[in-house]
Amino acid sequence: MKKNILVGQSGGPTAAINASLYGVVTEGMNHLDEIEHVYGMVNGIEGFLKDTYLDLSEDLTQKELDLIKLTPAAYLGSCRYKLPKDLTSPLYPTLFRKLDALEIGYFFYIGGNDSMDTVSKLSRYAAQVGSPIRFIGIPKTIDNDLMLTDHTPGYGSAAKYVASTVREIALDASVYQQQAVTIIELMGRGAGWLSAASVLARKYEGDNPLLIYLPEAPFDFQSFSRDLTDALRQRPDVIVCVSEGISDVSGRLICEYNDEARLDSFGHKMLTGCGKVLENFVHNHFGIKARSVELNVSQRCSGMILSETDILEAALAGAFGVCAALEGTTGKMVTFHRTPDTPYAIECSLADVNQVCNREKPFPKDWITCHGSNISPDFHSYVLPLIQGEPKRAMSQGLPVYAYRK
Amino acid sequence: MKKNILVGQSGGPTAAINASLYGVVTEGMNHLDEIEHVYGMVNGIEGFLKDTYLDLSEDLTQKELDLIKLTPAAYLGSCRYKLPKDLTSPLYPTLFRKLDALEIGYFFYIGGNDSMDTVSKLSRYAAQVGSPIRFIGIPKTIDNDLMLTDHTPGYGSAAKYVASTVREIALDASVYQQQAVTIIELMGRGAGWLSAASVLARKYEGDNPLLIYLPEAPFDFQSFSRDLTDALRQRPDVIVCVSEGISDVSGRLICEYNDEARLDSFGHKMLTGCGKVLENFVHNHFGIKARSVELNVSQRCSGMILSETDILEAALAGAFGVCAALEGTTGKMVTFHRTPDTPYAIECSLADVNQVCNREKPFPKDWITCHGSNISPDFHSYVLPLIQGEPKRAMSQGLPVYAYRK
Repeated sequence: MKKNILVGQSGGPTAAINASLYGVVTEGMNHLDEIEHVYGMVNGIEGFLKDTYLDLSEDLTQKELDLIKLTPAAYLGSCRYKLPKDLTSPLYPTLFRKLDALEIGYFFYIGGNDSMDTVSKLSRYAAQVGSPIRFIGIPKTIDNDLMLTDHTPGYGSAAKYVASTVREIALDASVYQQQAVTIIELMGRGAGWLSAASVLARKYEGDNPLLIYLPEAPFDFQSFSRDLTDALRQRPDVIVCVSEGISDVSGRLICEYNDEARLDSFGHKMLTGCGKVLENFVHNHFGIKARSVELNVSQRCSGMILSETDILEAALAGAFGVCAALEGTTGKMVTFHRTPDTPYAIECSLADVNQVCNREKPFPKDWITCHGSNISPDFHSYVLPLIQGEPKRAMSQGLPVYAYRK
Repeated sequence: MKKNILVGQSGGPTAAINASLYGVVTEGMNHLDEIEHVYGMVNGIEGFLKDTYLDLSEDLTQKELDLIKLTPAAYLGSCRYKLPKDLTSPLYPTLFRKLDALEIGYFFYIGGNDSMDTVSKLSRYAAQVGSPIRFIGIPKTIDNDLMLTDHTPGYGSAAKYVASTVREIALDASVYQQQAVTIIELMGRGAGWLSAASVLARKYEGDNPLLIYLPEAPFDFQSFSRDLTDALRQRPDVIVCVSEGISDVSGRLICEYNDEARLDSFGHKMLTGCGKVLENFVHNHFGIKARSVELNVSQRCSGMILSETDILEAALAGAFGVCAALEGTTGKMVTFHRTPDTPYAIECSLADVNQVCNREKPFPKDWITCHGSNISPDFHSYVLPLIQGEPKRAMSQGLPVYAYRK
């Protein structure tokens, strides 16, 4: 008997999450002997609990699917919704009644470690109650911090955007002669993978960014002063890249160094990032021009400089997940393994989702050099294959065309 | 007798300023019967006063010139240097001795209204002392605020970047169901041209950005509250685009609303923009999620989504300036005039640089609608031709290749 697919997107947007959706839908429709419909939850599991879903296999033309593949953010909408830890919660039978009513046989959730927690809980509940529904996680995060996979879909495009943008900001900073420090604050939460990609911005040895600080090494203002003094001896325009999540040796986030002081004129607390804290520190301790730039959400939602490798791998992860589920797999996340071959190639595999959820893969400490202010060439070799190629995007009247739900 | 060209870049970087440099150099080399060398001042007039210049006609290959054309920022470096108002200052004879020593016959300065002030002073001094050197201004600014020209090189690419990026941020904001307001702060100093381009981000009627505020209309917190309340009735994810230079009816900049309060933990004053002020206002007065995004320098230095029209016109402005100087013109800035024809076309002309310098062309008040919160379709027709086409950029190992001075 034919069954249906249900697919959802969860957590923060990326430039490749829709390519994984594309992979699930197109592979699902390649198996019309086993699959009747491919449904998409609108706003993840939270939306599905409110019965909001679409029939993707009916509603989308091939042209629309192709457009979705290269559209950033999350076509189906997303959520940040944690299922109850207690599997005896009445929410589970409610949810499974909804799945059964739609004759769902295969459930795919595209997301990061919080989303893998959802896959873990649902697959464990299914095992308890003897439900035949198979639950598969499709990895997605610009943070690249999922365990048991070489890298995650979404990371390559974000790394490419970061490297390109930092290269451009370095050009911008180089036009004046005066000493000036530019702090670029990058995403990644507690993991330094994305900030480390700023090292690719260097056009030659000794080029900016001269200093790069990741959350995996404790940040110390005295060391930073020394590093910056040395850097300013090399060139007047110094670019410093920092992860949003850098903290001091006690674990206190650098972005919290201003908390007590930042009140607006209405008397309310203001939130700023660590880039602003460092900008102020440089301005006041070095007495030179300092500015900070937060790349902000564009790191995760820009479609301007996608990595074709990333998009293809994201689609592959979705398709591989569908094949694995059809072959009987459940409670697993799709993973990537780099083959030892040259040129670069990956193989897909599967990992126990319980080993992935709620954990973070830190940036390797031995790839952090110069007392925490630089990145090893080993990382360069790791990341370079992930940013290769540019897919051809649809443009109309001078602007990118993106898919959206009507 | 053959003479030499001296060309410089001044003021803030843009994505098209190097295309104008390309135009000056290539057109200069088209007139080898009249031109011997094309020299480039390094760091504008300030650098030239310190004898730093290059021989662009000797040092650059055609391949390097082609790369420079699509490289953002300012290949020659820039300065923010104001010549003395008093034309009897000893600096003028010093400078002209340097020009004569290099046998300069034609001087081109690529920049905004401050740079046109330099052209004005030098051409007036030349007239006083009977120097035959001809001084021409090549317009450049992302702010689009130069008088007597339909638009300025650099604006089209910046407008395209803003429209594309706002479109992507709007997609990012649309993935969650919760009410949330995103404030996007855009450049343009006192002029709203660049922020107005955010209107192009809308994919359909009623799409974001729902609210757009320009410096040309006074900003009022009460009106903003009403506008935002209405907008939140339309959709939960509201994008508000604001110019960095918005001010209240008394002329007080909105970004200054926090000045008194922003001290960091070292007791020093912190500077933030109006986006952060509005973020805080929304958060505290509406009690909903608010975030602010500053597009920052990428608006002026990104090469990711150049407007081919802008690049071609920037090069044309440089070339036209060279031809005009060779024909005897001095003390003028190159201008663009839109022909009445369809499709869009421009003609180059010349304006008295004294009528351009130190003045700003504001965004037309009758293109600001909805009590200062929206933009008229007339602007849409004005700006759309300026963002058309994408030049093919050089890429290497997954990243854009940009020219730089060795």
